[in-house]
Amino acid sequence: MPADDRGRNRPDENQLGRRRFLAAGAAAGAAALAARTAQATTDNKAGPPAVPDWTKQLGPGVGDRPYGTPSPFEKNVVRRTVDWLTASKESSVSFTPIAEQMGIITPSGLHFERHHAGRAEIDPKQHRLVVHGLVEREMVFTMEDIRRFPAISVVRFIECPANGGMEWRGAQLERCQYVRGMISCSEWTGVPLRTVLRETGLKPAAKWMLAEGADAAAMTRSVPIEKALDDAMLCYGQNGEAIRPEQGYPLRLLLPGWEGNMSVKWLRRLEFGDQPWHTREETSKYTDLMPDGKARQFTWFMEANSVVTFPSPERPFDGKGFYEMSGFAWSGLGRVKRVDVSLDGGRNWQTARLHDPVHAKALTRWTMPMRWNGEPLLVMSRAQDETGYVQPSIAELRKVRGTNSIYHNNSMLTWHVKPGGEVENVQLK
Amino acid sequence: MPADDRGRNRPDENQLGRRRFLAAGAAAGAAALAARTAQATTDNKAGPPAVPDWTKQLGPGVGDRPYGTPSPFEKNVVRRTVDWLTASKESSVSFTPIAEQMGIITPSGLHFERHHAGRAEIDPKQHRLVVHGLVEREMVFTMEDIRRFPAISVVRFIECPANGGMEWRGAQLERCQYVRGMISCSEWTGVPLRTVLRETGLKPAAKWMLAEGADAAAMTRSVPIEKALDDAMLCYGQNGEAIRPEQGYPLRLLLPGWEGNMSVKWLRRLEFGDQPWHTREETSKYTDLMPDGKARQFTWFMEANSVVTFPSPERPFDGKGFYEMSGFAWSGLGRVKRVDVSLDGGRNWQTARLHDPVHAKALTRWTMPMRWNGEPLLVMSRAQDETGYVQPSIAELRKVRGTNSIYHNNSMLTWHVKPGGEVENVQLK
Repeated sequence: MPADDRGRNRPDENQLGRRRFLAAGAAAGAAALAARTAQATTDNKAGPPAVPDWTKQLGPGVGDRPYGTPSPFEKNVVRRTVDWLTASKESSVSFTPIAEQMGIITPSGLHFERHHAGRAEIDPKQHRLVVHGLVEREMVFTMEDIRRFPAISVVRFIECPANGGMEWRGAQLERCQYVRGMISCSEWTGVPLRTVLRETGLKPAAKWMLAEGADAAAMTRSVPIEKALDDAMLCYGQNGEAIRPEQGYPLRLLLPGWEGNMSVKWLRRLEFGDQPWHTREETSKYTDLMPDGKARQFTWFMEANSVVTFPSPERPFDGKGFYEMSGFAWSGLGRVKRVDVSLDGGRNWQTARLHDPVHAKALTRWTMPMRWNGEPLLVMSRAQDETGYVQPSIAELRKVRGTNSIYHNNSMLTWHVKPGGEVENVQLK
Repeated sequence: MPADDRGRNRPDENQLGRRRFLAAGAAAGAAALAARTAQATTDNKAGPPAVPDWTKQLGPGVGDRPYGTPSPFEKNVVRRTVDWLTASKESSVSFTPIAEQMGIITPSGLHFERHHAGRAEIDPKQHRLVVHGLVEREMVFTMEDIRRFPAISVVRFIECPANGGMEWRGAQLERCQYVRGMISCSEWTGVPLRTVLRETGLKPAAKWMLAEGADAAAMTRSVPIEKALDDAMLCYGQNGEAIRPEQGYPLRLLLPGWEGNMSVKWLRRLEFGDQPWHTREETSKYTDLMPDGKARQFTWFMEANSVVTFPSPERPFDGKGFYEMSGFAWSGLGRVKRVDVSLDGGRNWQTARLHDPVHAKALTRWTMPMRWNGEPLLVMSRAQDETGYVQPSIAELRKVRGTNSIYHNNSMLTWHVKPGGEVENVQLK
């Protein structure tokens, strides 16, 4: 491993590419043990490493924290809000720190929030789900009833359709947390909705379902019957435990791949009817205003998207040398099939490696090794899903949809890597 | 959905088994909406459901909790300790509430703990990993150095070899949390150890590796070089974020499928040598005392195991009717291939359904539908892994290993379901 220009150990991509990992001779320049142990001390003197306090004394015993929390040294890895973005905190959003996220599972404590009337805090013993309208048998379910059905678990993303919405007119917020952080991915547990609908039955005229939350906004959306009977789920579990209050405890509708707000949180009511309800949240909100003054309604699914999380505004390069670039891709229509990466603003592309497992409608991890010699870069990623759909540029999107909308901006981002390694969010013409 | 003898809605397995989920006529007896909405009120009067407080008032806004936590109504889903089990809390264990766990990912806050000198609380900036001994280049790595290597994420269990250890001589603790709760499963992120060893090189004489923790116990184990070069990882991520302090923040060795204590937490040193070190933790501890007075040493891998989490002492049956039994299976040697379930103490067996994804060396979810008519049951599960190995009975294990050991009891458990639905942990002769 060659030491870089600041004397730090750096992986050597020539070594990393080799099958013979014991290639002893090639990795020259590694700092010797004696010279470097000084770095392991706090006083920076030569000699044996200083023994830190945590090795000198007993730590807290078991039972100290019946429910564990992150290290205090990770206090900067948190959801963040943007003060000027909304008029109130109760109808607003907090963003997942996606640049820091590892793997594909978003920690439940960091799952982005979008509330319409704040976080409902529900007693599950008092909670009920009412199913009525064009069903054979109108029914009321307790949480115990719902948990008694056969359950499944699936890894799926939830994304707000306003993710990236501030970029439509050219805003260039720093932090990919703000630019693409309204997405999170969890292992969701619950019962397929179609299983529960076997019990209520559906009348032939039932073509639409209204889903309503128990929060003070009574958040309400119309869902076509085909989705309700396809992969919709009544979820009570997230990442191995009860859903977190911010995500809809004790019960959330999950509509995989569709606008996050349709996965109605704190779900209390499902009504079946023969036409959509045209609620506030699908007329004045969550519609896409086109250049001709008309609005697209019911633009449900989230199209293929991607983000480079390293390098990124939060995680700049630290000196020249070998790096493995990394990021996420996802699609509301199925599996990610391919991710391409450009270092020169879209002129040349290389295909990234997708990491297993690649779940449908889930965050997918991609990486690409590279060597950086300090030159400026314009880094972009471009996702393609199994339907063949390719993520567009912002110019292509604006040509079709103008700049009035705040939803469904799944265009490629561009990170400008400066000679010092800092990264800035820019938009190409 | 027929109402059961207590008037509650219950899934009907005849319905659940049908492809035509809209089978309207068959599910007789469902409580009508008007009759049941009374249950949704707190005052239990007839009429429209009472509107709960959480629908009448705004909840806390975004940013209220930059890092989310579970609902206060889930306060009983916690790690638990057993006071009489160990002389001190600093060298002890807390157990994962596996009966309540959903899916296959254990929430990081509930991952079981086993500490030998309490939980080390480490400043990652001060932490170093020293690699020395029979290497070509002795090196010291900062956390930044380690995180610069290409990373992977894998779903793997970690299990203490003392899991179930209190059962060797016939103790029958209640709660499957205590009987099998020293297992957890996470998405681990880090760099394959072999990648890092390309940088240090290894001398041909290097046959063993010593891994040492930075806790006050300086927990130390010998690892054969074959495992170090196979699937060993240097992990800094767990379930999407930095490893929790209880699990070794900022750096843990992961040896998938092997005794949990060998996945050394708070990893600070790797030494390479030509023979094992015979440390305290592989001589006086973590060896298996046989009936002839000799001890088995280096019994590294965790053999196929399983547990029924529903029904279980924590989750009894609640009246007659349809249930979907559920549990976990796992193997340190690869994928779970099959799980069989008996309701009559092992006379008759049925094959359970394994749920996707089935990862190697990871918790695997299985379920089996059944109808309970109130008769007493002796419920058992039996795992088989892809090597063909079949989980043994406690009698078979005792025949070979006697009752002196406290480690590697992977025998089948037996739950006695009583006529009232309560579940007791029993041992069959």
